[in-house]
Amino acid sequence: MGEFDLIARYFTRPSRHAVLGVGDDCALLHIQAGMQLAVSSDMLVQGRHFLPTTPAAGLGHKALAVNLSDLAACGAKPVAFTLALALPSVDEAWLSGFSQGLWELADAHGCELIGGDTTQGPLNICITVMGEVPPGDALLRQHAQVGDDIYVSGTVGDARLALEVFRGTVSVDMAHFEAARLRLERPTPRIALGMALRGVANAAIDISDGLLGDLGHIVQRSKVGAVIDTAWVQDSAAISEAMQSISFNKRLEFALAGGDDYELLFTAPPDQAEAVLDAAEACGVSVTCMGRITPVAGVQVLDLQGVPLSRRFASFDHFAT
Amino acid sequence: MGEFDLIARYFTRPSRHAVLGVGDDCALLHIQAGMQLAVSSDMLVQGRHFLPTTPAAGLGHKALAVNLSDLAACGAKPVAFTLALALPSVDEAWLSGFSQGLWELADAHGCELIGGDTTQGPLNICITVMGEVPPGDALLRQHAQVGDDIYVSGTVGDARLALEVFRGTVSVDMAHFEAARLRLERPTPRIALGMALRGVANAAIDISDGLLGDLGHIVQRSKVGAVIDTAWVQDSAAISEAMQSISFNKRLEFALAGGDDYELLFTAPPDQAEAVLDAAEACGVSVTCMGRITPVAGVQVLDLQGVPLSRRFASFDHFAT
Repeated sequence: MGEFDLIARYFTRPSRHAVLGVGDDCALLHIQAGMQLAVSSDMLVQGRHFLPTTPAAGLGHKALAVNLSDLAACGAKPVAFTLALALPSVDEAWLSGFSQGLWELADAHGCELIGGDTTQGPLNICITVMGEVPPGDALLRQHAQVGDDIYVSGTVGDARLALEVFRGTVSVDMAHFEAARLRLERPTPRIALGMALRGVANAAIDISDGLLGDLGHIVQRSKVGAVIDTAWVQDSAAISEAMQSISFNKRLEFALAGGDDYELLFTAPPDQAEAVLDAAEACGVSVTCMGRITPVAGVQVLDLQGVPLSRRFASFDHFAT
Repeated sequence: MGEFDLIARYFTRPSRHAVLGVGDDCALLHIQAGMQLAVSSDMLVQGRHFLPTTPAAGLGHKALAVNLSDLAACGAKPVAFTLALALPSVDEAWLSGFSQGLWELADAHGCELIGGDTTQGPLNICITVMGEVPPGDALLRQHAQVGDDIYVSGTVGDARLALEVFRGTVSVDMAHFEAARLRLERPTPRIALGMALRGVANAAIDISDGLLGDLGHIVQRSKVGAVIDTAWVQDSAAISEAMQSISFNKRLEFALAGGDDYELLFTAPPDQAEAVLDAAEACGVSVTCMGRITPVAGVQVLDLQGVPLSRRFASFDHFAT
């Protein structure tokens, strides 16, 4: 199968919202009048972002999910995406699974594939996603205010737990492993919550490299600091049953620095606490308050007695040695 | 150097037009009211799209140039781009050269780097470019009309000539090699010409895989055919001095199926011939008429005596065996 047949068979459908979809030099999009365009690109490399054992459909899902998660972190509504794909060879079973996982998530969010590129090379998936957000409404990393509460959506640590089970450093029973694995392979971009937090949250980011590392980006850009309690790691909506089944120390590590969660980490003033809970309830996702923004630079983690932990939590850096 | 230092050092500059540039979950762009957004993605893989010997600055130029060329083929004005980069390791000399080549071309076209991704992996460069075009003005592949003249901008075949010199299948003198190599490593996206052809040309494409193959996309999507003369391959503005220095047969092959030219191939009605020449002159680029659109499906190449050539010219397919 040649390049053009491959695109026609797996990656072309009639365009719906786009003025012009896959198949010309460019796609053409109409952006709703008065809206700002939100754009994000993520590149996934085998062995770095996913295991060679990852099922193709899960990979199609995840490649788009991590990009949609960036739109969610800005409060943007998904519109369209491009897909560039380097493949070692044309494997139709893989392409069929991959495209199925991709379409399912794209359809769930009304996000249209409008173009891209395919080439031969070591497996590499690069998606650029585009969304719309009203001017001034985007949630940014730089707007956290001293006194804000810090929240996290859904549950954290599960993806890392699944990875460590794969690596053989942790063992849990099969039901917990399957639940955690689903979070690793099928992360849920919090699009509805991101949009519901417009005008409610001050700052937001999605957790990809690890909660503390990503919170570090918020405090750095907002020129503030943060204090994180750890009581919520012991028992809260943010800790899944699977995470409850491992030691507190491991749980702490996976929750605070596990990465690959694709949950929203956001800050909001205390007087918006009810609005935050209402937004979360409306979207059917839990939120957990786990700290507050302070004037003192850096991120401090308090143990169960309220004493600062001296332990370091390394978050993920693609070029760390 | 970590991922974030790398982005800060080589790929971050104050944003100019973008509402929000590099450094948040998404970039934010304001699209001029009433404009359509033109979007294209290209992925470049070492060994497939460029030789390991390609200087880093040339690669930075070319990675953006091939994307800008897609905007040119639609008649769109460049606005912004994202860059996703997989690197085997952090090589500061390479990054410095690469980013310099990239910035120079980006600045020349007022096209702003607004975001992206960096990760460790086999060298892979994926750029998504965004431009603006007034509704209805985009040049599409599907609008060629029977009776249209077929034109090509600039010169064709040089990039392939340089590649074949590298491969040792052809030899030319050093001056010709250097001229051809410049076309291979520093292609010129025909942005101004594409914009000037709005309302003048009926259909357009940029030549990446080879003139005949890319013309094939136009005739297929426009449901027409084409006849190509070859007198222009013997002697015309589209054949450089370097190409003049090789045999006619090689020249024919490189001009018609060489690929990597990033010139515009477009069709226009005969009554627009003067407007085409005016547009080309205004942009300081030559255009050569080399055939016409016919009602008979397929692309026919005529020899110097006007007899159809039976010879096949294979254009580039990333998955051809």
